[in-house]
Amino acid sequence: MKKIIYLDHAATTPLDPEVLDVMQPFFRENFANASSIHQKGVLARRKLEEAREQVAEIFNCLPKEIIFTSGPTENDDLFLRGVSEVIGKGKILTSRIEHHSVLDTIKYLGNKKGFLATKLFQVGFLPVDKYGKLKLDILEEELNRKTIIFSLMYANNEIGTIQDIRKISELIKKKSPSTYFYVDAVQAAGVLSLDVKKLGVDGMSIGGHKFYGPKGSGVLFLKKGIDIQPQVIGGGQERGLRGSTENVPGIIGLAFALKKAYKNAEKENKRLIELRDYLIKKIQDEISDTRLNGHPEDRLPNNVNISFDRVEGEAVLLSLDKEGICVSTGSACSSESLEPSHVIGACSLDEEGEEDTMAHGSVRFTLGKSTNKEDLDFTVQILKKVIEKLRSISPV
Amino acid sequence: MKKIIYLDHAATTPLDPEVLDVMQPFFRENFANASSIHQKGVLARRKLEEAREQVAEIFNCLPKEIIFTSGPTENDDLFLRGVSEVIGKGKILTSRIEHHSVLDTIKYLGNKKGFLATKLFQVGFLPVDKYGKLKLDILEEELNRKTIIFSLMYANNEIGTIQDIRKISELIKKKSPSTYFYVDAVQAAGVLSLDVKKLGVDGMSIGGHKFYGPKGSGVLFLKKGIDIQPQVIGGGQERGLRGSTENVPGIIGLAFALKKAYKNAEKENKRLIELRDYLIKKIQDEISDTRLNGHPEDRLPNNVNISFDRVEGEAVLLSLDKEGICVSTGSACSSESLEPSHVIGACSLDEEGEEDTMAHGSVRFTLGKSTNKEDLDFTVQILKKVIEKLRSISPV
Repeated sequence: MKKIIYLDHAATTPLDPEVLDVMQPFFRENFANASSIHQKGVLARRKLEEAREQVAEIFNCLPKEIIFTSGPTENDDLFLRGVSEVIGKGKILTSRIEHHSVLDTIKYLGNKKGFLATKLFQVGFLPVDKYGKLKLDILEEELNRKTIIFSLMYANNEIGTIQDIRKISELIKKKSPSTYFYVDAVQAAGVLSLDVKKLGVDGMSIGGHKFYGPKGSGVLFLKKGIDIQPQVIGGGQERGLRGSTENVPGIIGLAFALKKAYKNAEKENKRLIELRDYLIKKIQDEISDTRLNGHPEDRLPNNVNISFDRVEGEAVLLSLDKEGICVSTGSACSSESLEPSHVIGACSLDEEGEEDTMAHGSVRFTLGKSTNKEDLDFTVQILKKVIEKLRSISPV
Repeated sequence: MKKIIYLDHAATTPLDPEVLDVMQPFFRENFANASSIHQKGVLARRKLEEAREQVAEIFNCLPKEIIFTSGPTENDDLFLRGVSEVIGKGKILTSRIEHHSVLDTIKYLGNKKGFLATKLFQVGFLPVDKYGKLKLDILEEELNRKTIIFSLMYANNEIGTIQDIRKISELIKKKSPSTYFYVDAVQAAGVLSLDVKKLGVDGMSIGGHKFYGPKGSGVLFLKKGIDIQPQVIGGGQERGLRGSTENVPGIIGLAFALKKAYKNAEKENKRLIELRDYLIKKIQDEISDTRLNGHPEDRLPNNVNISFDRVEGEAVLLSLDKEGICVSTGSACSSESLEPSHVIGACSLDEEGEEDTMAHGSVRFTLGKSTNKEDLDFTVQILKKVIEKLRSISPV
């Protein structure tokens, strides 16, 4: 079998073997329902609450501010709809480069109608600059007393751009202190600080499978005192905010994976940044007419997103795939669509008057624990041939 | 360490070792995001769709009628709220002995208000007889054109009573063909037929961890043509009805566990029924003043629920727990409450005029794959001592 070079860690990561080891006893031995009151249930409950404390320590919050869920998409619904349904009306702001799980939920809220078919919520999608950084002056203009939520990605899943969360939270507190600041930290988890006090956020979402933890696991940080309507009603688990028999192995795996990621983050981030910059430079040196998408410095350590002029990203992806190299063109969740990425599109809008001929040709390489320099050399060697071939048959 | 006798299989089951084996490759090797379009993503997608076909075969439905979720509580929300939110008004009926995940969701809908604070939905909780069987004559009276949903448990989690689902679906089709029939089949899965065509149901819910599959996994059967509002919006997975990166190992584990359960069901049901009836008889022979709760014949093969006069169920549970025997008093999801079970309460109501002095003293023993006769003999031996001791110190 051909060796696979997996460069799609933003889509998902393999379960870390140590994480799996930590989960194993909870599949078959300590398998009880954490709500059972016999000794096996009590043990499961204790381990679950220890996991909650571990996560709370990383978030620098109270254990009771941690809600275990099935993943980030659910978190987005739970916070965005949960808060909006309690408040009932107002303005919801977000950026144009959010994940579809946030965009779709906010669009849903924007279409919700009340008495006489009036819309309950005004929604706004704020622009970013050409690097994908939120335009803070526009946020400042748009924020007002009516703004109930501002939702923003910590680091973008496609182009890797990191937002200045702390600066933005200070702006919100100054301009509209009653606005809740919700942060999709899915790509930031395990890499950037999740200290909710320093960041100044009211809600924050992460998902286990992005940092070598289990799929089907997530955490919503919900700041004490914020009233939300639960989305999974019944059963009473997670303080009544998320009913369901707790997925104890999933929760324990997520907590351990998160702890492990932060234990190694400094060293691993440094290693990945070196590899990332090596890959960017090598592609730009060896292949003509390319453009780095996203911010040159404020970007995730593992994210390389390059547009290749006169080629389609999907064609590059499929050609690399034939050689055992797994990359993506954008978010896995919208990979079936052949539309150019809404994220790249939003960044291009900043370049006034010019049509972005490169929007269709973007390819995302996301590095991970298994990535080494040799794999990247091989990738660029193949990539160079692929781009040459595609350009030679391009009608443009 | 003392040997543990686990008699709480209705609360949850350990993961079957074969199920875990089947899941293992999807944790670390075939770990890709099923929405990625490279070969690793395509493989994950293919395996996921194979799992869907396996489940659809057991349900005797189309693969597209199978929605993978995080578990039964979510299923209840997805169907009950999802259908109600699309229709917008009407009557929702259920029984008094449902799981809290159904009861709480229907109560929530019952409190939803529209224009001028009028209630959008009328809700009704229908009575059962002393064995926990739905009173069909009352269902027939209550059903009318306005009834949008009737929700009923296939087999009760506390007392094990099995409802005549097919007969009820025929009654609904005759009396009010536009009413959707939703069945919580969580305790029936792996034990009773889930053939949705024979049962005549429109929605049905199961959860992996009740039949030796993984926690955090569930299936909602949603009959083709039924329009629902998704509860987890965004991402577009599960035909737009349940967004989230698919929990591939969980889904594959659930499908395999379900298939395995039905492969062995006939033999295992027979074995469990023998053990169940042995335990019932032995308790009744050796301990005075007991009552079997639930239906004497139409009950789950693994369910024994007995009330002991003049004792508290919790006291029995804790005393047995000290000896390494894990049982429960009711649903694990409401185990922290010391209120007598709403299920036993609903059955007692049938006995006119008499106060049910035994409602507080109910204990549930639920058998499973690991249960054998010796364990039951030991359990009754300890139970007898426990009951004698508790009765000797009882103030009654």
